Amino acid sequence: MSRVWNFSAGPAVLPEEVLSRAASEMLDWHGCGMSVMEMSHRSKEFAQIIGEAEEDLRALANIPETYKVLFLQGGASSQFAAVPLNLLRPRDDGAPGVADYLVTGSWSKKAWKEAQRYGDARLAASTEAEGYTRIPKADELALSPDADYVYLCENETIYGVKFPELPDTNGVPIAADVSSCFLSEPFDIGRYGVMYGGAQKNIGPAGTVIAIVREDLIRDDVAPACPTMLKWKTQADAGSLYNTPPTWGIYICGLVFKWIIAQGGLPELKARNQRKAALLYDFIDQSALFKATVAKEDRSIMNVPFVTGDAELDARFVAEAKEAGIVNIKGHRSVGGMRASLYNALPEEGVRALVAFMERFEKENA
Amino acid sequence: MSRVWNFSAGPAVLPEEVLSRAASEMLDWHGCGMSVMEMSHRSKEFAQIIGEAEEDLRALANIPETYKVLFLQGGASSQFAAVPLNLLRPRDDGAPGVADYLVTGSWSKKAWKEAQRYGDARLAASTEAEGYTRIPKADELALSPDADYVYLCENETIYGVKFPELPDTNGVPIAADVSSCFLSEPFDIGRYGVMYGGAQKNIGPAGTVIAIVREDLIRDDVAPACPTMLKWKTQADAGSLYNTPPTWGIYICGLVFKWIIAQGGLPELKARNQRKAALLYDFIDQSALFKATVAKEDRSIMNVPFVTGDAELDARFVAEAKEAGIVNIKGHRSVGGMRASLYNALPEEGVRALVAFMERFEKENA
Repeated sequence: MSRVWNFSAGPAVLPEEVLSRAASEMLDWHGCGMSVMEMSHRSKEFAQIIGEAEEDLRALANIPETYKVLFLQGGASSQFAAVPLNLLRPRDDGAPGVADYLVTGSWSKKAWKEAQRYGDARLAASTEAEGYTRIPKADELALSPDADYVYLCENETIYGVKFPELPDTNGVPIAADVSSCFLSEPFDIGRYGVMYGGAQKNIGPAGTVIAIVREDLIRDDVAPACPTMLKWKTQADAGSLYNTPPTWGIYICGLVFKWIIAQGGLPELKARNQRKAALLYDFIDQSALFKATVAKEDRSIMNVPFVTGDAELDARFVAEAKEAGIVNIKGHRSVGGMRASLYNALPEEGVRALVAFMERFEKENA
Repeated sequence: MSRVWNFSAGPAVLPEEVLSRAASEMLDWHGCGMSVMEMSHRSKEFAQIIGEAEEDLRALANIPETYKVLFLQGGASSQFAAVPLNLLRPRDDGAPGVADYLVTGSWSKKAWKEAQRYGDARLAASTEAEGYTRIPKADELALSPDADYVYLCENETIYGVKFPELPDTNGVPIAADVSSCFLSEPFDIGRYGVMYGGAQKNIGPAGTVIAIVREDLIRDDVAPACPTMLKWKTQADAGSLYNTPPTWGIYICGLVFKWIIAQGGLPELKARNQRKAALLYDFIDQSALFKATVAKEDRSIMNVPFVTGDAELDARFVAEAKEAGIVNIKGHRSVGGMRASLYNALPEEGVRALVAFMERFEKENA
């Protein structure tokens, strides 16, 4: 067996310890004679798995009891509908509910479009005309004082921009898609009304979504068109067991949470992630060949897009990197070039290997 | 390691060969240096996994190109909303679309309730008053000639009733939840408009849903309230890759399809499943202690509920069975007693062990 350096934007690299553990427990979890995939979701064994996963996540991220932790399905894309369906409140005069969307990349734009089905989803800011290369400043946001929520995608995976800080919304709840930065550093959940993310970037396999929702935003009187399965209250009332949850995904997320704790928690991961990102950005910023695409202050430490400016050279870089065991480094087609995703489970050694390869490639192509 | 006989209704027993294979490939799938969980869903490796899964399923079940195979998320419960959202057609005079629901257990009842949000979902038959112990006869169905579809749950997991044959709907498409009988025997897909099922009973881990939809029923002009992710066309147009699919679940389903092919396909599985069910039902029918709860002609060969008639004795049976390595045999709380699910991956040996245990228990408690 030979493992590669996997820079995939998601599904993405997982800690090797987690994979080994999952392999060793595959046919018999903790002596129960079954795989986790074979357990009833209502068994005491699975109750332990999901219970510990929630408990460890709450401990890791200081989530108080005033927030519910939901293990969901359907990808972040399903939450693009769930957010407006759960949060938009029609006005007394019958006017539709209002939301402000900050569009900083493909994912927030998709979410904004989806919300337009369900209410008055306003474009409070957009950097689309600038190719999503920065985050709008506070004074660029056209926030509606009466909005039901302000929506943002905290870290846009494709463009590699991240909110350096959350905007001041004057008490309006923030609904944030954190798929590609979830648990990459400490955060203050109190700043969010709703935080959700697909697991397949930083914390587990595709097919599991974790939503952390402030209790007062979990309501029974949601939009009548809201499918039962998209109503947060359905799963909040049932401890995420209204129907059969993605049990395997929750199990792997749970193992990843334990791995994070063993590494020293979110402060330690933040330090590592900053070191990894600095290694790569510092190299790029002094390079004559490679260029970063994002404004310095808004750069993601998770997803690092870069280009040579020559599409043919980019393609050769990607192909030769693969030969060198550096894989999934091709940029998204809407940005081109390269993108290195440096999620929690990617070791610093992998970033060093990438930088060394870039140095060599630059010399060879000077 | 000691494996048990797992009679869970779902998530449920998987073939040991599949689990061993998944364990051995966990850190490095086919020499690519990554786990399946770590692969980009747009990689050539995953294209092979999902491509083979679809191809094998089509071959196994004779699915022609006029039907789309969709790999979805959200559980069958999400399809309870997706079916009406995709299939109900408002009338020219503005009246809502009409559907006929055959309610034969908890799952079809839930689906019927969900559909009422979206149109005129009629109760065309119900056996609720009889405790869901049989399937309604053809002459009991109050079918609407103008219905957009007829909905049924072909095998009700909790009550253990199965349609011995599909009703004649006079050309109205049948939408069927087949979660707990999917791939347990050959079927004629031409009889269905839509067939869908959660994977976690007969074919894989929880979190993956497979829908097989007749092409003409996949439409762009669905209900305006339909979330993008519940619109079948979204995934049909994208080969199930509109967003990140549940990659691990699809991989395991694919391994199970290959396992089914290696066993001899659906005719062989049907023969085995009938043999397994006959072993258990024949014992129950001659027993002085145990009683089956379902009319003979409507009995499921997948889920076999039975009772002693004495709740205390039932509880003792369940507890002692567990000691003997026969697990997840407790009946659903709405039926009580016991339920043995005899899915494809449960070996005949497991049923023999159960029957032997029941014989012993009966003698000891005569």
